[in-house]
Amino acid sequence: MTAEPSSSPPAGGDFAAELYEQRFSVPFDYPVYFTRDVFHPDNDLLAGVLDRLGEGRRHRGAVLIDSGVADAHPGIVRRIKEYFHAHPARMESATEPKVVAGGNVAKTNWDIVRDVMWTIGTLHLDRQSYIIAVGGGSVLDMAGFAASIVHRGLRQVRLPTTTLAQNDAGVGVKNGMDEHGQKNFVGTFAPPFAVVNDFAFLPSLAQDDWIGGAAEAFKVAMIKDADFFDFLCRNAGALRDRDLEAMQQCVRRCAVLHLEHIRSSGDPFEFGSARPLDFGHWAGHRLEILSGYALHHGQAVAVGIALDSYYAMRKGLLSPDELDRTLTGLQTCGLPTFSDLLAARTGDGDLAVLEGLQQFREHLGGRLTVTLPDGIGRKIEVHHMDPGTIADGVAYLHERSGTG
Amino acid sequence: MTAEPSSSPPAGGDFAAELYEQRFSVPFDYPVYFTRDVFHPDNDLLAGVLDRLGEGRRHRGAVLIDSGVADAHPGIVRRIKEYFHAHPARMESATEPKVVAGGNVAKTNWDIVRDVMWTIGTLHLDRQSYIIAVGGGSVLDMAGFAASIVHRGLRQVRLPTTTLAQNDAGVGVKNGMDEHGQKNFVGTFAPPFAVVNDFAFLPSLAQDDWIGGAAEAFKVAMIKDADFFDFLCRNAGALRDRDLEAMQQCVRRCAVLHLEHIRSSGDPFEFGSARPLDFGHWAGHRLEILSGYALHHGQAVAVGIALDSYYAMRKGLLSPDELDRTLTGLQTCGLPTFSDLLAARTGDGDLAVLEGLQQFREHLGGRLTVTLPDGIGRKIEVHHMDPGTIADGVAYLHERSGTG
Repeated sequence: MTAEPSSSPPAGGDFAAELYEQRFSVPFDYPVYFTRDVFHPDNDLLAGVLDRLGEGRRHRGAVLIDSGVADAHPGIVRRIKEYFHAHPARMESATEPKVVAGGNVAKTNWDIVRDVMWTIGTLHLDRQSYIIAVGGGSVLDMAGFAASIVHRGLRQVRLPTTTLAQNDAGVGVKNGMDEHGQKNFVGTFAPPFAVVNDFAFLPSLAQDDWIGGAAEAFKVAMIKDADFFDFLCRNAGALRDRDLEAMQQCVRRCAVLHLEHIRSSGDPFEFGSARPLDFGHWAGHRLEILSGYALHHGQAVAVGIALDSYYAMRKGLLSPDELDRTLTGLQTCGLPTFSDLLAARTGDGDLAVLEGLQQFREHLGGRLTVTLPDGIGRKIEVHHMDPGTIADGVAYLHERSGTG
Repeated sequence: MTAEPSSSPPAGGDFAAELYEQRFSVPFDYPVYFTRDVFHPDNDLLAGVLDRLGEGRRHRGAVLIDSGVADAHPGIVRRIKEYFHAHPARMESATEPKVVAGGNVAKTNWDIVRDVMWTIGTLHLDRQSYIIAVGGGSVLDMAGFAASIVHRGLRQVRLPTTTLAQNDAGVGVKNGMDEHGQKNFVGTFAPPFAVVNDFAFLPSLAQDDWIGGAAEAFKVAMIKDADFFDFLCRNAGALRDRDLEAMQQCVRRCAVLHLEHIRSSGDPFEFGSARPLDFGHWAGHRLEILSGYALHHGQAVAVGIALDSYYAMRKGLLSPDELDRTLTGLQTCGLPTFSDLLAARTGDGDLAVLEGLQQFREHLGGRLTVTLPDGIGRKIEVHHMDPGTIADGVAYLHERSGTG
């Protein structure tokens, strides 16, 4: 009976306490691949990914497909089944690929996540089985959340299909469900087992989903990579006009910047109050909710970037020219820099979007911490946002959008 | 635009892929205190715990109390309120202490966990706010699960009140809900912010809850600490007869052994297939479910230890004398070494408890991995359990229990 508690801390009065100080680290690693035609029977990548730990067994998994992907690729269920059949030594499908509702309904409907959890149980998938989710960010978030809480976490392989999921939502460590009137009110930090970005999904995207990822690319470029910002401004028209080569570069660079941030931030699970990758998101998240999701995430974030960039200009952090390049870049991509909802007022006469600041603070806790660009390619944190300057920004963006 | 993907893996045919290998570690640390009278206004410990990061602010939190604790300590709600009032600079109660159903209903009822989640939302608790849970393992598991998924994780402070919660369930990194007919079908790995074990809760426990923790103490002693096993055997009668000093030693040592295992195992979040701290649990978990929770966790684990100890004896891992000391020790504590449910058969004529082996494997995945004692104080892993020998053990324990 050695190893008594390691020390005694101060405690008031006669209430002496003994202390055992627990301390450990949990290592995580996962590959993020960029490929084409992931379900082509001759593309070994996915089969190899399932066996990336060299376990040499036949891996069981269930595939969930975003209904939007299934609609755009009518043969995909058959192709996935054929892919499993083509790799019998390494993978086994526990059930038919399952189509689940895509778009924001996926992550706002508790019945859907419960259904996925029950499916995992009924199929006797275990903690070393796979949930392979094919879809946009909402389906990846929902499937990732379900997979992260059953048996305290199955292996999840993400196959993001939108630009935004491929360059941001799908490569990180978070999942979430929107509830209680708030984005990602519920969720976990749960690094994936692997991510496979298949560029062949991109050409069939609707224009909103095609260009949505460019908003996150502007976001991360403005706070981390001036060269990438220049690239985006130069290629904004090509991105809008569906130049696949330009979009692949945009997606790849944006994904890598997100991955590097998570790796090097020192706080991948956000125990602190800073969330630099959420530049532009306090307003963006609020606008999504206010619009009832009519405004997609990328479009809402574009408006949020526009608003915070104006704010940064007023605080001397961006020059008027840098603000203009930002707004022009977003607009040339076909992304919005204003929404009528930005000017909406609550019953008290306040800008409704300002509630987003409080919710943004509340999600992490501690002091309000908003990241702004400090010039192009650098960032700074502020702990107060002045409502008057925000209102000026709303008016400016309204006028500039040509609808004021 | 530097930092291109770091390498290219082999991929079949013309489907060249690029790879970014993500890799990081997440550090966790939390103190586990042993004290008395945690809510005495002069005991500074809890107030100090909330500010253990030195943030120097008034910390907001909500307190959840196990109904069993509230019943046994009629003044506790008032005392907790007075404790908050006595430490106004460091802590603030977001709401009245809330009594929640204790016992297994806590972790089998989704409505209860949803209610806690909604309470967190309505009170605008944020990720740096506190859920302070006072109670047995089930309430800690339920509260910990809710706290771990809202905003992707609030800070949770656990005040375990039973011997089993203080020496095992409450000091570790897991939470869970029983669903789909399985123990902990849903849950997360979520290290607490702090744990405060208050020994003053122990004397008022019902006998089942008083002695339940001794089963987990036998479990961990048998696989890790021969001296502790000797202590338990020597003090079995004193433990049964409510010797508080003996029980405090039992709880403290058992808790420290669990903490040391989690710290040093190299796999605190169980990515592999081994779970050595679950010696005796494959049968124990199944018996809990089969009994409709009439058999409490500690009692069910005692039967599971008895069964696996018999099995270990038959495989030459324990001597007949060591088996006898184990069974005598458990019985002297007043813990069961047999249950009629152990002999129950399915419609196919198989022992119903054997389904526990499959569920045990399925929870972690990979190969079945069961930990057995290898002598007293050491452990060994086996990957097969022979049903015939298990059936022999059931018959032996039946006869030895005097009811055969």
